[in-house]
Amino acid sequence: MIIIMRPGTTRQEAEEILNQIESVGLKPLYMPGTERTVLGAIGDERKLAGLHIENHPGVDRIAPVLTPYKLVSRECHPANTLVNLRGIIVGGKRFTVIAGPCAVENPEQMLLTALAVKDTGAHCLRGGAYKPRSSPYSFQGLGEEGLKILRDASEKTGLPCVTEVIETEDVSLVEQYADAFQVGARNMQNFRLLKALGRSRKPVILKRGMSATVEDLLLAAEYVVSEGNPQVILCERGIRTFETATRNTLDLNAIPYLKQHSHLPVIVDPSHGTGVREYVTPMAKAAAACGADGVLIEVHHNPKAALSDGHQSLDPTQFSRFMDELRPFVEAAGREF
Amino acid sequence: MIIIMRPGTTRQEAEEILNQIESVGLKPLYMPGTERTVLGAIGDERKLAGLHIENHPGVDRIAPVLTPYKLVSRECHPANTLVNLRGIIVGGKRFTVIAGPCAVENPEQMLLTALAVKDTGAHCLRGGAYKPRSSPYSFQGLGEEGLKILRDASEKTGLPCVTEVIETEDVSLVEQYADAFQVGARNMQNFRLLKALGRSRKPVILKRGMSATVEDLLLAAEYVVSEGNPQVILCERGIRTFETATRNTLDLNAIPYLKQHSHLPVIVDPSHGTGVREYVTPMAKAAAACGADGVLIEVHHNPKAALSDGHQSLDPTQFSRFMDELRPFVEAAGREF
Amino acid sequence: MIIIMRPGTTRQEAEEILNQIESVGLKPLYMPGTERTVLGAIGDERKLAGLHIENHPGVDRIAPVLTPYKLVSRECHPANTLVNLRGIIVGGKRFTVIAGPCAVENPEQMLLTALAVKDTGAHCLRGGAYKPRSSPYSFQGLGEEGLKILRDASEKTGLPCVTEVIETEDVSLVEQYADAFQVGARNMQNFRLLKALGRSRKPVILKRGMSATVEDLLLAAEYVVSEGNPQVILCERGIRTFETATRNTLDLNAIPYLKQHSHLPVIVDPSHGTGVREYVTPMAKAAAACGADGVLIEVHHNPKAALSDGHQSLDPTQFSRFMDELRPFVEAAGREF
Amino acid sequence: MIIIMRPGTTRQEAEEILNQIESVGLKPLYMPGTERTVLGAIGDERKLAGLHIENHPGVDRIAPVLTPYKLVSRECHPANTLVNLRGIIVGGKRFTVIAGPCAVENPEQMLLTALAVKDTGAHCLRGGAYKPRSSPYSFQGLGEEGLKILRDASEKTGLPCVTEVIETEDVSLVEQYADAFQVGARNMQNFRLLKALGRSRKPVILKRGMSATVEDLLLAAEYVVSEGNPQVILCERGIRTFETATRNTLDLNAIPYLKQHSHLPVIVDPSHGTGVREYVTPMAKAAAACGADGVLIEVHHNPKAALSDGHQSLDPTQFSRFMDELRPFVEAAGREF
Repeated sequence: MIIIMRPGTTRQEAEEILNQIESVGLKPLYMPGTERTVLGAIGDERKLAGLHIENHPGVDRIAPVLTPYKLVSRECHPANTLVNLRGIIVGGKRFTVIAGPCAVENPEQMLLTALAVKDTGAHCLRGGAYKPRSSPYSFQGLGEEGLKILRDASEKTGLPCVTEVIETEDVSLVEQYADAFQVGARNMQNFRLLKALGRSRKPVILKRGMSATVEDLLLAAEYVVSEGNPQVILCERGIRTFETATRNTLDLNAIPYLKQHSHLPVIVDPSHGTGVREYVTPMAKAAAACGADGVLIEVHHNPKAALSDGHQSLDPTQFSRFMDELRPFVEAAGREF
Repeated sequence: MIIIMRPGTTRQEAEEILNQIESVGLKPLYMPGTERTVLGAIGDERKLAGLHIENHPGVDRIAPVLTPYKLVSRECHPANTLVNLRGIIVGGKRFTVIAGPCAVENPEQMLLTALAVKDTGAHCLRGGAYKPRSSPYSFQGLGEEGLKILRDASEKTGLPCVTEVIETEDVSLVEQYADAFQVGARNMQNFRLLKALGRSRKPVILKRGMSATVEDLLLAAEYVVSEGNPQVILCERGIRTFETATRNTLDLNAIPYLKQHSHLPVIVDPSHGTGVREYVTPMAKAAAACGADGVLIEVHHNPKAALSDGHQSLDPTQFSRFMDELRPFVEAAGREF
Repeated sequence: MIIIMRPGTTRQEAEEILNQIESVGLKPLYMPGTERTVLGAIGDERKLAGLHIENHPGVDRIAPVLTPYKLVSRECHPANTLVNLRGIIVGGKRFTVIAGPCAVENPEQMLLTALAVKDTGAHCLRGGAYKPRSSPYSFQGLGEEGLKILRDASEKTGLPCVTEVIETEDVSLVEQYADAFQVGARNMQNFRLLKALGRSRKPVILKRGMSATVEDLLLAAEYVVSEGNPQVILCERGIRTFETATRNTLDLNAIPYLKQHSHLPVIVDPSHGTGVREYVTPMAKAAAACGADGVLIEVHHNPKAALSDGHQSLDPTQFSRFMDELRPFVEAAGREF
Repeated sequence: MIIIMRPGTTRQEAEEILNQIESVGLKPLYMPGTERTVLGAIGDERKLAGLHIENHPGVDRIAPVLTPYKLVSRECHPANTLVNLRGIIVGGKRFTVIAGPCAVENPEQMLLTALAVKDTGAHCLRGGAYKPRSSPYSFQGLGEEGLKILRDASEKTGLPCVTEVIETEDVSLVEQYADAFQVGARNMQNFRLLKALGRSRKPVILKRGMSATVEDLLLAAEYVVSEGNPQVILCERGIRTFETATRNTLDLNAIPYLKQHSHLPVIVDPSHGTGVREYVTPMAKAAAACGADGVLIEVHHNPKAALSDGHQSLDPTQFSRFMDELRPFVEAAGREF
């Protein structure tokens, strides 16, 4: 850790900090400059967290040398993690396609959509039973009834299923029905929920928050992994920027960054990342091209009637064309469906 | 509601939507233009939410005429709401100062800080027992033990106390100790938590999320109020932008906007809004000047040793100077401490 | 155009505006609602620009129906524009690769780099003679000397060359040496420069500004085209967001958006879009996958010694691997080098 | 300067860089850590700019210790700079009010507005003759004719006048008419223009770019000052963020930051910073409260008919009320009109 002192700090203030650094077993360094004094701490700087050196009035800024996350970093664990989604391996040779409606609405809608995506070659089913919505007047999901409908469609098609969990107290209920948990963008920093999922044995798809940096995302994953669950899939789904032409700004730069800095699989959600049906296919191709391990796609057997996000959902015919168009890019990336 | 159709849509597609509008009792309007067709719906457009007109493939964009929130809007409720924080009225003549440490650390720290802020004229006490932190390796708060320590300091000083609640299942526990709930930026869209707080009788300080628009904030407040709890205080605490010179970008434009569009009281948190001790006082003055009803300030009896956010905390001497410097601006605003 | 009036506006205020709409030959519409009055104007709403209806104190918001740009829009001009870069057609079947150093430094550097990119299959040469730099203490480019060196390398390799112009008064000088102009992100809204380039006959590569929306970019292109020069290539090069892990956030959503809304070719600059050498190749693949017509790549024969942006430049060996890795994605997109 | 090496870099790579540091007369430091190697350079790190150490493939990140600007920094020049705007001193005891229309439209409009703001107590006149506009179809200003009209109003009222210059070639023309130059947000990084203004003897009001950090703004000021003109006034006018409820997000955090890091005067433009007439007064009060040296306000004798930005302009009656309401905050700040 590098500590840049304010102009005019005294030797004594520097000594206070150097003594603190030494007290936790790191090697302190004193570097007086012509205009500023700089201090250093050599060793595992994570031990310094408890000292709160940033609080010292003589400190201007701190420049960490190491990443604040450890278990999810590629430095500590060079080999790719493979996540097992009830038989579907995410992060290996296969480019995984997880498809289904935004929200579970009723048994017929869920089953028709599930059969359609299964026919077309999707590997997993998605569908939300708990829907976090900006407005209290929007459809909020069917709750446990939705979980049952999703499970039923999953069993009838043989596709493993993923669904969002929005609250710690729901974890054990959702676990009974789903093959994997999804944590939505708004809950990426719901740390109690992350810890609860860290104590589950089922995989977790962790969506990046709308204003979360990639480092924030990796720290959120660290919460899950540090509680004992290494089966985490990271998901880029767009960030909030000044651009309003698309619902979010899909940050595909994040894909090579995350693959370089972490061993966890990374998937992309172009449905939320764009919010526009016509842009879902091009952005899924782009995701495959820049190294993603899969995509999360909203499909609805009748988007016009969808209770949530119909404008960004593909219908079965569009989804079939989507898979056909995506295939050459998956192959160009050396992957397969 | 105004519905802008895509170029080339047919009369029949327009009719489909016009019929839907009529079906919920609104008056449909058909406006064919030279390049685009525009449709309108006259009446209470919130009834249209269930129709999901945005899903129709012929629809390009929708321009709502009314705000999506209702109960919290000034249009529906012109008079200012006064929130009663155990005897301290927020939103009236008084400019309310809520002060205390970021985190409750131990009885001595809490009591010393509480006595100091009481002496200097603060009206309420703050202190966190549950701390959401980006890293799993940071201090996470004392939990119920912290609530007890806070309550004790509150009773010894006679100052009402506010504390953060991070989880639905904690609501009843926190309610036993605190005079008001605080919802942190990361939980502004934790809708289950908002609903639970809507069923409480204690006031809620709702902090704006890092990437939440002011409309998102008002919709979050609508969740609480629509469940039956009208005692909501909105809090601007900075948004996330490209500027990294300060921890967040304090969006003071939000103050006149929120006062114009809503009847709820609005306070400002310049400690998180800047993240820099020296900027807390100038930004608190600015908050008073542009119409805020109060401020939330981090004070610690010994910031150097603080377990959380010490670099943005004032010590008792600095807080005393803060109050002295703030007073002329509070008075210029026609308010009083 | 749709005009949403403030609550409480009078019939007379509405009449004032309706009369104005009628005065320029559009059909006015009056739609009184239960809570708000809405007005409409049917016809070519661009005629309304001179009326400044938004200034009227009774007006709350205006929702345009048509795009504010016209000549560059696909609605007005459905067929793709092909730009002729001295024999290299951009926007057709070929996926165009424009490569070279960030800055022209000296004849040897420019020629070695030019020969290397020519050998590897690049179609055009790039190199900056005028460098806009944040700090006055950074290298600012060689000026006319740099233009001569670039021209020389262009002629020795037979590759057409592109270079940045930063000032109206330089346009005729740059035109003597370059086959196409580049307008940098910082000059995207230098409207005097855009107009001057609109009076040239040489193509213009227009880079998106760091905080420009895609609509701003299309309006900037409209400046060039409306002065008489239809040979404009749009270039996505990353926007400024809260994410600092990469130099900019490459907004690839913009590619399908721009291709849908405009007939102009669109290329991508992954060197500036990421600022990280290792991410240039994956993001170029992603650009090809989502529909871009080409890429702009920084190559330097010795990046370690580069005077500008060496950390994001490829060396000749890396560039050769880049082309090999990119090819399958270009082919998957139905394009060719 | 602190240089953080990539994991796995060799001693030899470090030596290469250490030798470079030594070669420009700085003291090199070698700090091998348990996971990463860190290098340091002690002395005036601005000498390192020419070495481009960031290009070295072994370098991960660089953490500068000193600011990249020097002449404009308070460290190098502790006393406040006073700017003399033809007799009006900006940056001293007076809180300066610069008022006038967005655009000069005709002699009557300019003179009526000038007389009104003079009567009410404004210190300087503003008015644009060259208007950079997003759309080529918007009013672009009267050019030299506008400069003459502005000069005439300035002489008839005795108020010094400020006007925008958008192009290097216009500098000498504008200088003949104006008492100070304004550089607009879109030109904050038009470095050729900045240098030309640095060779003038008249003051420069430098507006912050929409996506410029405060450091970028100070570097832009450094361009002007380093060419020989120390008379620079910084102007915060709002940045572009995800929030669209206001035209821009006025970043008042920038005021205490700029006052702490620089000796230059700082003013605020709440008209552009909010884009909403009703928010101009509260945000001007906030600007005075947090330490600004003045404000720039759009006033038009008849905003309904304004050719540009009428919706954010005050009329003379509103401006008179503005001054009355602002006064107590100016006095609370220890300043005077």
